[in-house]
Amino acid sequence: MEFTDLDVENAYRLLAPRPTIIVTTVNLKGQVNAAPFSFTMPVSMVPPLIAFASVLSHHTYKNIEETQQFVINIPGENILEKLWITGEKFPPGVNELEKADLTPLSSDLVKPPSIAECIAHLECEVKWIKKAGDHQIIVGEVLKVHADKNALKDGLLNAEHVKPLLHVGGVNFIVGDHLKKVE
Amino acid sequence: MEFTDLDVENAYRLLAPRPTIIVTTVNLKGQVNAAPFSFTMPVSMVPPLIAFASVLSHHTYKNIEETQQFVINIPGENILEKLWITGEKFPPGVNELEKADLTPLSSDLVKPPSIAECIAHLECEVKWIKKAGDHQIIVGEVLKVHADKNALKDGLLNAEHVKPLLHVGGVNFIVGDHLKKVE
Repeated sequence: MEFTDLDVENAYRLLAPRPTIIVTTVNLKGQVNAAPFSFTMPVSMVPPLIAFASVLSHHTYKNIEETQQFVINIPGENILEKLWITGEKFPPGVNELEKADLTPLSSDLVKPPSIAECIAHLECEVKWIKKAGDHQIIVGEVLKVHADKNALKDGLLNAEHVKPLLHVGGVNFIVGDHLKKVE
Repeated sequence: MEFTDLDVENAYRLLAPRPTIIVTTVNLKGQVNAAPFSFTMPVSMVPPLIAFASVLSHHTYKNIEETQQFVINIPGENILEKLWITGEKFPPGVNELEKADLTPLSSDLVKPPSIAECIAHLECEVKWIKKAGDHQIIVGEVLKVHADKNALKDGLLNAEHVKPLLHVGGVNFIVGDHLKKVE
């Protein structure tokens, strides 16, 4: 390999591809918002905590500040085009699920809906939020998990079935179905 | 799809596969440690910040507490077996790079070495650390980025060349080289 210096602003391009999630939220009026994120990671098993990063101005962030709840929906390859529509800029109050022709399901423990076409739904409430540069890190506790019967296999993600979407940048994604095991 | 309730402890299995990194650190004596992590995400572009989660007892975490520096090394498919060795449990003070036959390179701005066999090296210093359940979230500012000349293509990760390793769980990984674009 031949190494070269890159601008530090490229750092996030190298930490890729990243799991893509659709976060559903509601505001105090109950209006639904849905948007894709890929700055996300699990952070704790007991209690189960998941983090994602959002800019302050994002409708998702504003809704979470207001209601302290969100649902993490895990999409598969088959809904990439719909996921992309949820990422378009719509005015506040527009329901991206309707725009993308995605189906809301009532969640059990939180107000934001789950997405029927996603293979798993993690119902979350905010544990803490902290600023990190130009984003806010939101840590949520997972209160409830619904998943397709075939989402896990032997306790791990059934990647060949789920065909998870991983974000590279812009319109470019990776389908995570090329398995490799340590020998 | 047919949905079922899963234990909330399975939440992190669904947020997968995740980018795998090898974090290199040194303690106050200058002894090198290297270990793989997959609870990681970018969190900010300006300034460039990256987060990862570690348990308190991990040698990586102890070294970072002592010296406030680390390097995030991005591995490709070709070093999966070596990456796996860095994840084995060795006593404190053991240099996992030697155990895995990986080559240290001097970093420019921080004391921990970079790994010659990785396609990119992000030299970081700690911005903040905060507890989240059974892990600590470490947010680092990227001070310097070295990457293989072919790591990026048109400004995005050159996934077909890099063949990034994504963790599913245990010995199970995904090679992230199956591209898909939004039409």
